[in-house]
Amino acid sequence: MSRTEQDFLGQREIADDIYYGVQTIRGKENFHITGIPMNQEPYFVKALGYVKKAAAMANRDLGVIDARVADAIILGCDRVIAGDMMDQFVTDFIQGGAGTSTNMNANEVIANLALESLGFKKGDYQHVSPNDHVNYGQSTNDTYPTAFRLALILRLESYMTALRQLQEAFFAKGREFDRVLKMGRTHLQDAVPMSLGAEFRGWGTTMGEEVDRISEARALLREINLGATAIGTSVTAAHGYPKLAVRHLSALTGIDFILAGDLVEATSDTGAYVQLSGVLKRTASKLTKICNDIRLLASGPRAGFNEINLPQLQPGSSIMPGKVNPVIPEVVNQTSFLVIGLDTTVTLAASAGQLQLNVMEPVISFALFFSIRTMERAVNSLRENCVVGITANAEHTRNMVLNSLGIVTVLKPLLGYKQCAEIAREGYKSGKSLHQIVVVERKLLTQEKWDEMFSFERLINPDLIA
Amino acid sequence: MSRTEQDFLGQREIADDIYYGVQTIRGKENFHITGIPMNQEPYFVKALGYVKKAAAMANRDLGVIDARVADAIILGCDRVIAGDMMDQFVTDFIQGGAGTSTNMNANEVIANLALESLGFKKGDYQHVSPNDHVNYGQSTNDTYPTAFRLALILRLESYMTALRQLQEAFFAKGREFDRVLKMGRTHLQDAVPMSLGAEFRGWGTTMGEEVDRISEARALLREINLGATAIGTSVTAAHGYPKLAVRHLSALTGIDFILAGDLVEATSDTGAYVQLSGVLKRTASKLTKICNDIRLLASGPRAGFNEINLPQLQPGSSIMPGKVNPVIPEVVNQTSFLVIGLDTTVTLAASAGQLQLNVMEPVISFALFFSIRTMERAVNSLRENCVVGITANAEHTRNMVLNSLGIVTVLKPLLGYKQCAEIAREGYKSGKSLHQIVVVERKLLTQEKWDEMFSFERLINPDLIA
Amino acid sequence: MSRTEQDFLGQREIADDIYYGVQTIRGKENFHITGIPMNQEPYFVKALGYVKKAAAMANRDLGVIDARVADAIILGCDRVIAGDMMDQFVTDFIQGGAGTSTNMNANEVIANLALESLGFKKGDYQHVSPNDHVNYGQSTNDTYPTAFRLALILRLESYMTALRQLQEAFFAKGREFDRVLKMGRTHLQDAVPMSLGAEFRGWGTTMGEEVDRISEARALLREINLGATAIGTSVTAAHGYPKLAVRHLSALTGIDFILAGDLVEATSDTGAYVQLSGVLKRTASKLTKICNDIRLLASGPRAGFNEINLPQLQPGSSIMPGKVNPVIPEVVNQTSFLVIGLDTTVTLAASAGQLQLNVMEPVISFALFFSIRTMERAVNSLRENCVVGITANAEHTRNMVLNSLGIVTVLKPLLGYKQCAEIAREGYKSGKSLHQIVVVERKLLTQEKWDEMFSFERLINPDLIA
Amino acid sequence: MSRTEQDFLGQREIADDIYYGVQTIRGKENFHITGIPMNQEPYFVKALGYVKKAAAMANRDLGVIDARVADAIILGCDRVIAGDMMDQFVTDFIQGGAGTSTNMNANEVIANLALESLGFKKGDYQHVSPNDHVNYGQSTNDTYPTAFRLALILRLESYMTALRQLQEAFFAKGREFDRVLKMGRTHLQDAVPMSLGAEFRGWGTTMGEEVDRISEARALLREINLGATAIGTSVTAAHGYPKLAVRHLSALTGIDFILAGDLVEATSDTGAYVQLSGVLKRTASKLTKICNDIRLLASGPRAGFNEINLPQLQPGSSIMPGKVNPVIPEVVNQTSFLVIGLDTTVTLAASAGQLQLNVMEPVISFALFFSIRTMERAVNSLRENCVVGITANAEHTRNMVLNSLGIVTVLKPLLGYKQCAEIAREGYKSGKSLHQIVVVERKLLTQEKWDEMFSFERLINPDLIA
Repeated sequence: MSRTEQDFLGQREIADDIYYGVQTIRGKENFHITGIPMNQEPYFVKALGYVKKAAAMANRDLGVIDARVADAIILGCDRVIAGDMMDQFVTDFIQGGAGTSTNMNANEVIANLALESLGFKKGDYQHVSPNDHVNYGQSTNDTYPTAFRLALILRLESYMTALRQLQEAFFAKGREFDRVLKMGRTHLQDAVPMSLGAEFRGWGTTMGEEVDRISEARALLREINLGATAIGTSVTAAHGYPKLAVRHLSALTGIDFILAGDLVEATSDTGAYVQLSGVLKRTASKLTKICNDIRLLASGPRAGFNEINLPQLQPGSSIMPGKVNPVIPEVVNQTSFLVIGLDTTVTLAASAGQLQLNVMEPVISFALFFSIRTMERAVNSLRENCVVGITANAEHTRNMVLNSLGIVTVLKPLLGYKQCAEIAREGYKSGKSLHQIVVVERKLLTQEKWDEMFSFERLINPDLIA
Repeated sequence: MSRTEQDFLGQREIADDIYYGVQTIRGKENFHITGIPMNQEPYFVKALGYVKKAAAMANRDLGVIDARVADAIILGCDRVIAGDMMDQFVTDFIQGGAGTSTNMNANEVIANLALESLGFKKGDYQHVSPNDHVNYGQSTNDTYPTAFRLALILRLESYMTALRQLQEAFFAKGREFDRVLKMGRTHLQDAVPMSLGAEFRGWGTTMGEEVDRISEARALLREINLGATAIGTSVTAAHGYPKLAVRHLSALTGIDFILAGDLVEATSDTGAYVQLSGVLKRTASKLTKICNDIRLLASGPRAGFNEINLPQLQPGSSIMPGKVNPVIPEVVNQTSFLVIGLDTTVTLAASAGQLQLNVMEPVISFALFFSIRTMERAVNSLRENCVVGITANAEHTRNMVLNSLGIVTVLKPLLGYKQCAEIAREGYKSGKSLHQIVVVERKLLTQEKWDEMFSFERLINPDLIA
Repeated sequence: MSRTEQDFLGQREIADDIYYGVQTIRGKENFHITGIPMNQEPYFVKALGYVKKAAAMANRDLGVIDARVADAIILGCDRVIAGDMMDQFVTDFIQGGAGTSTNMNANEVIANLALESLGFKKGDYQHVSPNDHVNYGQSTNDTYPTAFRLALILRLESYMTALRQLQEAFFAKGREFDRVLKMGRTHLQDAVPMSLGAEFRGWGTTMGEEVDRISEARALLREINLGATAIGTSVTAAHGYPKLAVRHLSALTGIDFILAGDLVEATSDTGAYVQLSGVLKRTASKLTKICNDIRLLASGPRAGFNEINLPQLQPGSSIMPGKVNPVIPEVVNQTSFLVIGLDTTVTLAASAGQLQLNVMEPVISFALFFSIRTMERAVNSLRENCVVGITANAEHTRNMVLNSLGIVTVLKPLLGYKQCAEIAREGYKSGKSLHQIVVVERKLLTQEKWDEMFSFERLINPDLIA
Repeated sequence: MSRTEQDFLGQREIADDIYYGVQTIRGKENFHITGIPMNQEPYFVKALGYVKKAAAMANRDLGVIDARVADAIILGCDRVIAGDMMDQFVTDFIQGGAGTSTNMNANEVIANLALESLGFKKGDYQHVSPNDHVNYGQSTNDTYPTAFRLALILRLESYMTALRQLQEAFFAKGREFDRVLKMGRTHLQDAVPMSLGAEFRGWGTTMGEEVDRISEARALLREINLGATAIGTSVTAAHGYPKLAVRHLSALTGIDFILAGDLVEATSDTGAYVQLSGVLKRTASKLTKICNDIRLLASGPRAGFNEINLPQLQPGSSIMPGKVNPVIPEVVNQTSFLVIGLDTTVTLAASAGQLQLNVMEPVISFALFFSIRTMERAVNSLRENCVVGITANAEHTRNMVLNSLGIVTVLKPLLGYKQCAEIAREGYKSGKSLHQIVVVERKLLTQEKWDEMFSFERLINPDLIA
């Protein structure tokens, strides 16, 4: 069983169980780029439902749409919000037309749901029209970005949770390794001692800052242009509609949306996406550093730093028996490169706005959601499959400190830069330990003073000058 | 029905119809980042079959693997090459371990195929072992990059065809529009006349150059490190294996592979990918320019350039009736941004190689295949759904030329720069046409000379000085 | 006259009028990359003076440096802050050693100033030593980033002023063009009418948002690690030094600096730079869009949009007489590309931190200061040489609106999407005006209703449904 | 003493010793972005001289410029080529107008030189005009890109030499370290043994490939559009001029230039720059990897890999006495980040071409020359100040190999993957050496067989199966 729908290009048969209509079909056929349909990001579909519902409620309140029709539309929106129609959102993430196909996909699905609830057949658009009723007083140019922003706000919730949990995992390890003495390194060269716990704590601290930055970037997404319609002049919208629609949307979602003060600016502006993407990239650059560090500290076991051990998840090599590789940090590194690359994509797309619209928003949405999704998985994997299972080689790291020359820095306030530098160079050339040179041979310090200077507390928190 | 497999992490039950084994399962569980499995790029799977087959043939020739076992492995490889096992290649494109999970996926599937062909049950690895037989004398570090390169070489074929066809489509339009006079523009300002055909021909020419560059970058992919094994020292490989394996691979595929002269270098080198990605990016930057141009020329219809008309593929707007948007060029623009962004990803990953390996190759493979796939679709869509259906508004473009002031340049050899500049400024200020000023008012040229100077041939190919 | 200085590499003669010493010379010789010395960014030099002064004050307060020596150091710092020593800051912006050469440059210059003020000769470092006194309780790893951040905070002041002034210039034009009716465009296609003033106002609004974002990113720079010394453990610093030094720095500069809560994290963290760079890039992407728009609107004069006229600054062409090009927007476009590219540099450098330090900070400082400096000049030029002199072709833009078909959208609430689409297509095919079809031929509206619907107020602020 | 020049903006006094004229002054005043004038790249100035000379010769041959005037122009060009006029090329690298100011700078300087040689005064342009004579049959749009390409070709010579010398330095070290046994590492984990010489040789090999790629990219620059004039239609050029001018330019420079087959395409095409930039970026990504490796191998001295020692160039730290940091590799890393960032700039600028021209070429020229200049310095510094002075800690690296477990891979062909994996894990858990487990405890090999398997030759070139 099928129905016939028509647009100016001609007629199309549509199977009767399909809720979308001819315009969605055009979009689906015209745009086959990523092969990743919108329903891969369920929050985007739900967000479309919320936006269309808020619009219908405002239009009903304003009396520009018949209450019976509006109520039927609202019922349809509720089904979309509930996630019942996921398989009906079929347009590709990347599309021309600035999201028109996605907007029409929503309009058509909701119109047909409304028609059914009113006892009509799908496609009887004279009763409930995708354009004239569901999309009343709306344009792709305000509904698509509004839904996009709402979807991002919802989507970032679990991403921030993932980062917070990673932060906690680092902090927990920080506490566990608090008494593990190790060599701090700058320029990859032995520097001065520290606690391994402080290193992990630092990774936690820096992840916490990311949650703050994302939270700020997310707040910017609350400014929307709903009611701007085509170019920000609110053409075709009823008087009072923009504020009312935004108020409904806030009430429905519990998110405090703000109607942009300059709707013309807001309609072509993609700054909030660039800001968010910049922060995602920032987090990626930090995770790159952290995972590089983890891999460095785990290098060895015999010919590397060998400070920590990562959980063994799989045989590391098809050829080298017994080898275990830092596969999880490696996968986080790669995901970070992906996110950083996609930030370039977002920047390019944002720069390509023209006049009253930026038609490149669909690729921005692809890039952002793909970044968030892959990075959230990577971050969760890093925590679950790596960080929580890390162990320390405390004896080895302690021995490295005591064999090191860098700890001469501890003596600098006592002996001065010049003498310390000379001692360090003697140790470097002769291979002797610092203790040998300073206490045994040159007798610059008593053993007692040495022990005081090189106590654990002093080394990792050298707060007091002798 | 199921079998039990084991690795050092413990036992796993595996359903009996599954050809991969426990290591593939570990990889699948450990790496869930993009959700896009290797079999989304069938050429990669086939390429793994070819590489494993070449290796088995070489090992059989050298007598290091029993001929009966080798032949069974080869049979298994043939099934993989034929595409029968696509659903068995399940590891995510982005993975830690530098592709070990993908290599083991191939080893396990082929081992089980070999076992079945020898009358054994899946999992009876003492007869045919994924590691000791299928992977004999191999490492992920030589087989994965070799398969990756072979897959790219195969994959680029249809991509280059797409570009060549686009070139042809532009050339065809170039011929069609050869006599369409239009204003050439520099700095978006009216410059001097030209033929619309020349503009389209230029786009064709520039696409042709891309095919040349890709072809050169593709040739670099033929240098492989098969036989290098873990780090380029050929450890565990039989004497003579590298050359022999490469020779077999060349014979099997008809591609003239070259064994790298410095296997240590080749094993960590990702330069060929960076080169290819750079060229993909170059093409993307050209397509950005071309699609921007097409959209500009089609701008209007009343308040824009309105030189050409694009085929109407779908209603352009959910709010503005009758509007038709340049949706296909827009989608090509967006795909170009994606490709340019992913080039950053490739560069980052290539820069992150360390010591004897670059463990970031999986994300490079994701980025390159995703770029090629999406761009090929975009290019084909540009040709089919846009270029071939473009029509010209010849009368309008001709009128713009004759109303223009830029054509004063044609008179520069006759009247000198200074006088021409003055005439142009008078036209600009008064709104008068050039003909009015030069012929009617100032009588600087006779009508006859004017006609000669502004003939079509002269304007679009102004080769002769008066 | 010259003096001799020595380090472990040997002796160097130094002309007597030179205040820097042997370590600065090493740095100058070792790093010759950009050819751009630190004193190209005077704020960085001043910031070093402030940081060294705050350190000396804290060390004097804590009694770890002799008051007479500390006071002499402070006097030296004041000379640096006053800008008297600019020519003595000679190290290249890009350097290895994480800024050690720059830090030593400051230490040496200040030590020699202090020596002179105490009546000693330059180079008599036993009285005032660059390392043991000027750098007491300090490391490059806390003083360089602190000075870098302070310099950025100071430097951004005039950059934000430039953006604010550009915003004001756009707003002023917005008011000037408030009654200029023009066609709004989406997808480069005629959409619905708007006021030219609204377009300019939108550019002002969006620049204002940039000032807000920069202000937020700038606030993050106030978190510093002064007192962290080498790796965040405050090794060699006196007890209480970090808080005291930060307090002095705040008092000296009037900037509310915050001592980082996690000094280990803060010492390798470059997140604040990435954040700032991301915002600079965001502004660049917006300016790209704005300058593209300006160039589009100014395209023509005869074969383009021709909505606005840019001030004529120079002959536009060496060949085409009378041509005037949009050279200022073009130069802003190019500067934007530079800034976007340098953001990639910052991201790469930030990602390259390792363990307790990010040694790549010097290239970050080069990239950020180069971006800010060039962009500030570009923004000022855009305002002064372009925006303030723009004029509108009001009659032409109004005619384009009335000739347009896009304005059928205005009738959509009256006639419905389907009928409007049909009318638009008839106009498109026949070349007839909308008025002809709707009022004259089809008599769908009276002339009176037409006039009401297409009044200026309604067109640019179509707030009321008929 | 001064002269007065005039353009449509008004009159300007110009000091008499200045060879450029009013248009150069406009350009200098309008564009103050980088503060880096064209003469910072002397090859660009010389290239302008060559191009103008070739044009004058062609115009003289064709009789369109009076021979006496043409000869005077040619004399002026010779002075520019000789470098006598460097201080007269004052326009900023980044400029609007697509290089018009630079072209006019050349035209004016050469015109005034010609005037002087003919006995006229500077500014007497009725005798020799910058526009009508020096620029005869030319446009910025063909002369600027042609000069740019010629300048790049000349400039790349010393850059390629720098890379070749670095390659040789690596090869020399490769020979020196040929017998130094060390542990190869993949995933930063101990893998299998190799020679340190092979590692250095690999770096040399990979640099050699870069020279090849640059050479190919450089060859593409030989395709020029000289004679295309404004948009590729050769408007204002004499019949036969393009071929003749190109022939003269080839003869003058000894470079085999090719006149583009499609001049319309060539005039807006920037593909050759993107290709070159992509290769510069590729080299940067390889140098990033190499310098990371060098820093890793030099990490320590006690708590790192400590395989090699870098020359000590300066005290490494202002706080940690005796510390020596890998400052040269660090500066190369940073320069690489700069080059990679500037490739983004080039890509953006190339993508921004519109219709018959890409007005963004100036920023492309800035980016390319800045990349080449800084990278050449970095590469030379890497060779001179680092690579040639590297020494190996051969005893230490050898001990790491013999203590390693990774060498079990050598036994895999004898004992099989599974048994080897078990042995490796026992060693890992117990801390025992492989020899202890295999020979002493399990007696799987005789001592004799062990010695054979672990001989130096076998370990670093394990070509023969037992």
